[in-house]
Parts: sequence; structure tokens; C-alpha cells
Amino acid sequence: MAQKEKQKLKAKVEEEEGPIKQVSAEELFKEFREVNVSQFFAKNKQYLGYVGKVKSLTTVIHELVTNSLDACEEAGILPDLKVKVEQIGEKDAEHYKVTVEDNGPGIPEANIEKVFGQLLAGTKFHRNIQLRGQQGIGASGAVLFAQMTTGKPTYVKSGTGKGKIIEIHVMLDTKAGAPKILDKKVQSGEWRGTLVSSEFKGVQYTKGQKGPYEYVRWTAAANPHTKIKFKDPENEVVFERVVKEIPQRPVESKPHPSGVETHDLLELAHHSTAHKVSSFLVNELTRVSADKVAEIQKLVNFDLGISPKKIEWTQAEQLAQAFKKIKWMAPPAMGLIPIGEKTIEKALKSLLQPEFVMARTREPRVYKGGIPFLIEVAIAYAGNAGRETPEGKRAELMRFANRAPLLFDGGACVTTAAMNSIEWKRYHVQDLENEPITIFVNLISTHVPYTSAGKQSIAEEEEIYEEIRFALMQILRDLQIFLGGKRRAAEREEKKKIFEKYIPETAKALTKLTGEKEETLIKKLEKLVYDRFGKDFSKEPEEEKEEVEEGDVSEE
Amino acid sequence: MAQKEKQKLKAKVEEEEGPIKQVSAEELFKEFREVNVSQFFAKNKQYLGYVGKVKSLTTVIHELVTNSLDACEEAGILPDLKVKVEQIGEKDAEHYKVTVEDNGPGIPEANIEKVFGQLLAGTKFHRNIQLRGQQGIGASGAVLFAQMTTGKPTYVKSGTGKGKIIEIHVMLDTKAGAPKILDKKVQSGEWRGTLVSSEFKGVQYTKGQKGPYEYVRWTAAANPHTKIKFKDPENEVVFERVVKEIPQRPVESKPHPSGVETHDLLELAHHSTAHKVSSFLVNELTRVSADKVAEIQKLVNFDLGISPKKIEWTQAEQLAQAFKKIKWMAPPAMGLIPIGEKTIEKALKSLLQPEFVMARTREPRVYKGGIPFLIEVAIAYAGNAGRETPEGKRAELMRFANRAPLLFDGGACVTTAAMNSIEWKRYHVQDLENEPITIFVNLISTHVPYTSAGKQSIAEEEEIYEEIRFALMQILRDLQIFLGGKRRAAEREEKKKIFEKYIPETAKALTKLTGEKEETLIKKLEKLVYDRFGKDFSKEPEEEKEEVEEGDVSEE
Repeated sequence: MAQKEKQKLKAKVEEEEGPIKQVSAEELFKEFREVNVSQFFAKNKQYLGYVGKVKSLTTVIHELVTNSLDACEEAGILPDLKVKVEQIGEKDAEHYKVTVEDNGPGIPEANIEKVFGQLLAGTKFHRNIQLRGQQGIGASGAVLFAQMTTGKPTYVKSGTGKGKIIEIHVMLDTKAGAPKILDKKVQSGEWRGTLVSSEFKGVQYTKGQKGPYEYVRWTAAANPHTKIKFKDPENEVVFERVVKEIPQRPVESKPHPSGVETHDLLELAHHSTAHKVSSFLVNELTRVSADKVAEIQKLVNFDLGISPKKIEWTQAEQLAQAFKKIKWMAPPAMGLIPIGEKTIEKALKSLLQPEFVMARTREPRVYKGGIPFLIEVAIAYAGNAGRETPEGKRAELMRFANRAPLLFDGGACVTTAAMNSIEWKRYHVQDLENEPITIFVNLISTHVPYTSAGKQSIAEEEEIYEEIRFALMQILRDLQIFLGGKRRAAEREEKKKIFEKYIPETAKALTKLTGEKEETLIKKLEKLVYDRFGKDFSKEPEEEKEEVEEGDVSEE
Repeated sequence: MAQKEKQKLKAKVEEEEGPIKQVSAEELFKEFREVNVSQFFAKNKQYLGYVGKVKSLTTVIHELVTNSLDACEEAGILPDLKVKVEQIGEKDAEHYKVTVEDNGPGIPEANIEKVFGQLLAGTKFHRNIQLRGQQGIGASGAVLFAQMTTGKPTYVKSGTGKGKIIEIHVMLDTKAGAPKILDKKVQSGEWRGTLVSSEFKGVQYTKGQKGPYEYVRWTAAANPHTKIKFKDPENEVVFERVVKEIPQRPVESKPHPSGVETHDLLELAHHSTAHKVSSFLVNELTRVSADKVAEIQKLVNFDLGISPKKIEWTQAEQLAQAFKKIKWMAPPAMGLIPIGEKTIEKALKSLLQPEFVMARTREPRVYKGGIPFLIEVAIAYAGNAGRETPEGKRAELMRFANRAPLLFDGGACVTTAAMNSIEWKRYHVQDLENEPITIFVNLISTHVPYTSAGKQSIAEEEEIYEEIRFALMQILRDLQIFLGGKRRAAEREEKKKIFEKYIPETAKALTKLTGEKEETLIKKLEKLVYDRFGKDFSKEPEEEKEEVEEGDVSEE
């Protein structure tokens, strides 16, 4: 740049930028730092669900309980959980101790420190598998939250049943991004399970909505193979095991071609041990046959005989585009393990003693073209169904993803949208919001499409929305009959009362007409009414062909 | 455990756990992995805002534009931005190239690779300062999203104006968790600024709501010191600079005692260079005087003369509890830099040419007992105010946090709640939703209380809610007068039309009565009406003491 131009520029800059002193890039970048992931989450603990006094405590319970259930399921063990919430110090100290104990497989000595003392470390992150947890931040996140609010480490005891019991007091060293072990004991013993105990401040226990009690109650509803002993600052409740069958072990499922993006495909290819792209496709994706490979070959401009390690972005992109042009069988559903209709009905009967209960487990389907899911829906009516409020029973929507309760952010959830789209009145549900009804929805999928990092709300994928609606409507046909019967029974009860009320009067009138004794006539009339409706008017007679008018009786 | 007990336990376990083969902890933990933060965000890109085709593209623009504005503000430079969105390939290819260029301070050679090629690296994470960005994941997150959707690196050119211009093509090596530089050139030259250019697939450009155009338009509204040239696939728009003053440089503010938690206090103390806790408190927190130290000393059971490096959790906790018992002055507001009433009004006039515009910048206040904030609200009415829809104008709520537009998740935002709490009808706004009105709300704070990781919605803190309401109501008193005037003008216009309509008729009648010429009478009557209301009926007369009846005119 010429000297003159420079001066002009400088003058222009000064004119435009005024008297504020400019600061150089070098000066600004003196503040440049790298932070590790534990510092990041310590600053942004709301990303992990630690926001609000009640929600924070519920999140702790959620993380520990889901880890226990996942571990038992993977290990093939019927879970036996003890959950304890104790208040420490004064009533308004907002200081609690949470202990969760399971009879799961335990954690090997080599892994225990990182499971609890390091974020982003775990067994689930990289696997395409139906489990409740996914990230490897649940347990260590709770440890971080404990130390941030109380300065105290978390106590963990774990045994694998093979002779060693390990006890540690663990924290996260946020500066080093590594576990900090304050105390470790190894004993011999055959106890199997994991016990985690931690203190938290600035949290609040509530038995009401969205609190730990509700979380555990919902967990029991969707996991009736689990026994949960729950002790809160006031009471102890045991949610007994309702079924004795252990759920099938979840299996990893291979990605389906129509759901694979270029980026993932390239990652898979570069990690593959196959010698040819063709065999890589057949072995590491689902539903790819030799015939399909031939179809794909016609759609790409490179030889599928090359090594998958050698393919580049543009080639992987060609594959991904070819996949979209081919007709695929839906992914196999063996990765999806529903609770099952009978089991859900048993669980809800045990939990709610409803007058009506029915569950529907739908067939597997796919959303976004490639991700398998299935929907389970149940409705329980009357008895203890519905949500208890000071003003009486209200409708309760119990939402689950892979059997884990979703207590927060219900407004944005596909389940809420599907529920609201139903014309409930058509099914004799006159005022949904104020009925003693529990609606249970469980989404089973190897990949739950949450709306946000909070993992409390399922995105409105059209296929999921429709499946929930179908399942609800299937049940509603039966609920309609039940409620219709209930309504008719109520009407008959009303009629019976009217009849009974008029029997003495009618008898008096007939006495005058016929001269027969009033008492005899009353008995005859009563027999007439009871013969017609039964002593218990709430039961519907086999057939009810025509309405009985009051006149009919007095004419007899 | 005795042998007998063991056998009993085994039998019990078998009975309970049935035929499913148990899997040991060791086997399960073969799957144990540690992942790095880039793998974590690659799997959970929705945490960074990359969800949905439109939102993803808007997020890219947001990250790059806020970085540019922050850098200019910190460096004391009047920003000059060029934002370009180009469509690549076919119309429905969902493939775009985004380029953002600024005249900011540039990035030093030593830092440029990590700024774009590593997550959680930046200048803002650890500072208590009013800036748009906070985490050090914006720029590198966009680079990650680009490579995940196109496989391509991001091109960056940066010059600090001091003779070196650096050009790199950068990606994230997600396996190594480090930057991957594909190409680097260093030239000499005095160009100053940063240019970032990246391609994305699976995204969608829209000129409509929540798209990049709206984002840039809103940015211009809240940053009228910025010139933005915006080029989309069809047009080019220039948002001219409306004010020439550079906003004050944001300064770091010290934490206020009533907002400090034990954990943070301990961190601060252990990093302090002070020799005594007392001087640490005075120097590193705001509003702590020698008098306050004496007050604190009475509330804790240890000597404030010890080294801050030596204090432990329980001592830090005592301090934090003592802070809560002491009356503090509110934090100084010098960390808070509002846009200012005049500037907002100028910006909205330039953007919307409204008939009415008024802004209010409220005094600083604190929420949650310690975090300073201030609220700026403006209302623009008629002209181009309001949101354009095919059905006509609708009310538009423009939300900002530290001048950065919040386009998504408006439903859960405190601004929406505050707006809806107002009885608009009292202020002559008859049907808020369908009025040509733009409501502008900007929250300024060193810590914006977002509801979630998405950073699009502000939590309902009571103090913030009330401040927004107050500010709105202050303006609404003026809007009421304006709309009242508008309404009366409309009524007068209506009346004038009626008068004019009846003038010939009245003249005819008067001709018969008085014998005067009809034309003369018409002229006289017209003069009468115009004298009363003026030729332009929309202007209100100085005083309008009583309604003029039609009869008054004809009696004249």
C-alpha cells in the first residue's frame, strides 16, 4: 500500500472510530485459554440437568437409577434397587444425601475411578444400542454436582461377586480433567452390586410432581421387573416386582443404509476390517445383500472392490446418495425390546388398581427413513389412576423413552401433541384434563430423537406421532365401551332411585284402586324393579332392549 | 459368608433371575471407552444449535457474526461486516456456502489454528464480561458442522493489520481432539480483519422467520453502529451504519458477594495472589470494604488474616453464608453497556420507518441477589413495523441478549411472558397479535440466565420480568396517547366525510329557506367545516372541548 493511501486510511479509521483506543489482536488474545470438558460442564451444569432445586435432585436420582437398570439389563440380572433420600441438618438447609444401591454386575476395579471421576467415559457412547444412558456423563456429572455444592467427594462401593469389594471416595479434579481418589479400600467378599452415596446442597425434595418420588414411581411403572425400595425423609415405600422375567438383553444393531449420513459412513469404512467396500457394506450395515451391492455398484462411479480404508468423502457421499435411491427392507426389530402389553397392564394394575386398563405394543417402524422405533401405549382409568391434586383427580401423562421417565418439558413433546390431537369426547372422555385417567406412552428406539440436550422431550417426528395416535385410538375403542357401560350403569342407578322413591306412592295409589294391602304391593313392586335391574344396578343386564318407563310399572 | 448361605443365595438368584445367562462386569466393561469433547459434540451437534435445516444455517451465521462483533467491540473498532450465503449446485441440493468477513482486530498466528480447529478454546470462557459469546465453541463448532456435512475444511483468512496475513484450511481432528491444518499460507500485507468461509449440506436458506436474513436484520437493529452487507442467493441488502459511536469497551467485572457460591469462592481464593483472606475479599470481589471485612470477621470462626490459598471448603462456606447475612450495595453497573434510548430509536426509525417509536433504557438492577442486568425496551408502531405475513402485518417481538438476536424458543422466554402479562387494550392496542407493532427487548448482563443449553430463551427471573413490564408500561403511556390521537383523527375523518356528504343537501334546504344561492351556501358551509377541523382532518385541533353535532352546522 502506498504511503498516501495508508495515511488516508488512517484518517478515515480515526474519523470513523473516534477517540476509543484500539486494542490489538495480540493484546486481546492474551486471554486465550483452553478448558477441559469438566470445566466446561462445571460452568454449564444446566446442560446436565442441574437447574432448579427440585429438578437437580431428580436428575441425580435419574442418573443413578438408569445406570443401575442398564447394568442389570445388560448383565441379565433382575434388578433390586434401594433409593434413599435423607435430609441433612435443618429443615430449610436444602441439604440432602442420596444413596442408590443395586444388585447389578458391579464395576471392575480397573474402571471404577473413571466411571465416577471422569466425564465422557463409559460403555455406551459408541454403541448403537437401546439403553437408557448414552453419554458416559451421568454418574460423573452427579459426582461433579455434589462436589460443587458441598465440596465433598462421592462414596462408591462396588463388588462384582467374585471376591473383591472396592470402596472409594471420588471427586473430579476439574483442573486436570481426571479422577481424584481420596480414599480407597479393597476387601474380599462376594457381595455383588454398586452403591453410590453423595451429598448435595441447594436442592429440594418434594413428594409432588417432578420430584424423586414421582420419578421412582414412574420407573416402577415402566420397569415392573424391578423391585425398588424408596425411602424419603418421611416414609418408606416398596414398589414390589410385578413380573419375574428379565427383559431380553439389548443387542447392538447395525446402522440401516437409509439412515446413514456420509460422515458416519466414512468413519465406519475407515474403521472397518473388511477388504472390500462391498463386504464392508454387507457386514457392517443391516439389510445390505449381494443383490443390493449390485444395485449400488450401478449408482456409483468407483469399484466396490477397493478397500474401505481408501474411500474418500466424495465416494462415501456417492454411496449415501445411492442408498437413498434404493428400496430397503425396514431395519430388523430385534434391537428393540418392548415392555410388552401384558407386563404394562400388570404393572399399572399393581400401581393404580384401576377399573379399566389396557396396553398396546405396536409393531416396529422407522422414522427419518432409517431409525427403528416402536410405541407402547396404555390407558388406566379410575381407581388410583390420574394425578392427585388438592382439587381432585387430574389426567396424568406418563412419558417414557426406553423405559426411563421423562418428567420435564412435557409441553414440547410429541406424546403431548399426539394426546391433544385426539377427540377424546368421541370416546366418552368428556373432559380429559379433569378425568381420573393415566395415559402411559413409552418410546423404544436405539436412538431417541430428543428435542434438546435436556433429554426430557421427544421431537415431533411424524411417524412417531402417528404411531402414538393409532395406539391411543385402538385402546380408546375399548375405553369407550367401558365408559359407555359405566354411563349407562349410572343412568340405571338414577332410574332405580326414582323407581324406589315412587314405590310407596304408587303402592298407596294401587291400594285405593285394588284394595290390596299396601305392604304386599310394595313388595311386589320392589320385586319388579329388582328383577328388571338387579339389586346391584351398576351391572348391565345381558340385553336391554327398550327403556322401561315409569308408567309401565304403575300399570302392572 | 457360610457355604450354606451361599448356596441358598445362588438358588434364590437362579429362581429369581431365570434362564437368561448372566454377563460379568468384566465382560461388560470391555466396551469401556473415553471420548474427547469433539467426539461428544459430533454425536450431539444439537447441543450446539445444529438441529433443523433452517436453524442450522442460522446458527452458523450467528456464531460467526457474534464473534466478529465481540472482537470489534473489544478492540474498539466500528464493525464493517459482509455476510454472504451462496447456494451451491442444484436448487434442492440443500448445499450452501457461507462467508463472513469483518474489519476486526484479526487473530494472531499463534492462536488461529485452535480458535477454529479446537473446541473449548477461546478468550471468553473464564471472564466475567458482557460479550455475546461465552464458551469458545462457536467458531470451531461451525467448522465441525461443515466437515460433518460436506467433508470439507473451512477457509480462514486473518490479518492483524501489522504486516502478516494468514490463510488456512482447517478441520477438527475428532480422534486426536486437535486442529488439523490442511493448508497454510502466510503473506505480508496490512489488511486487517477476519474472513471465514465454509460449506454446509443438509441446510436450507429462507428469507422468512428464523432464517439468516432475519437474524442479520435483527442484528442491525440492536447494533446500529455496525454496517452489514448481506448477500443471499437472490439479493444484496446493505444495513447502513446508523450511529458512528463505538460502544464502550466491555470490562470484566468482579463477582458480587451475594452472588458467589462456595465453590466459586474457593476457586477464586486458591488462585488469588493476596496474602490474607481479608485483602483477597477486598480486591477480588466488588463492594467489599474494610468495614464489611470487619462485619464478616464477626460471622466466621477463623481469622481472616490467613492466606486465601489455605482456606478449605467449610471456611469458604462460612464466608458465603456470612455474605448472605450482610447488606450489600448493588454491584456497580459499569460492566453493563446498554445500546441507549436514542440509538435504539434511530436504529428502529432507519429500519422500520414507523409512525411511532420510543425506547426506554432502565437503570441497572440485580437478579438472584447478585447478578447485575439492565433492560432496554422499545416499541415501533405502523410504517414497516410488525412482521410481514401473507395475511398482513402481525405483531413482532424482537428479543436480544447482549445485543445478540434470540430467534428460537420464544414461547418459554421471560420476554414473552412479560409481554403477555400486559393489558394491551388499556393502551388502545386492541388486538396485539394483529397490529403493525414491533416490540424490541434487549437484556444486558454479564451473565444471561438462559433456560437451556440452546441459549435462545431467557429464564423467568422475577426481577427481569418486572423490569421488562415496567419499561413496556412506560412506553405504552405514550403509545396510548399516539393511538388515542390516531383514533380520534380517524373519527374526525369519518365525521368530516359525513359533513361533506350532507353539505349539498343542507345547502339545498337552506336555499329554499333563505333564498340564497346554493353555490354560495355550499362554499360557506365548507368553510365552516374546514375552519372547525382543518383541511387535513387527521391533525388534532389545539383544543376540542365538545363534540360538534351535525345539527350545529345546519343551524348556522
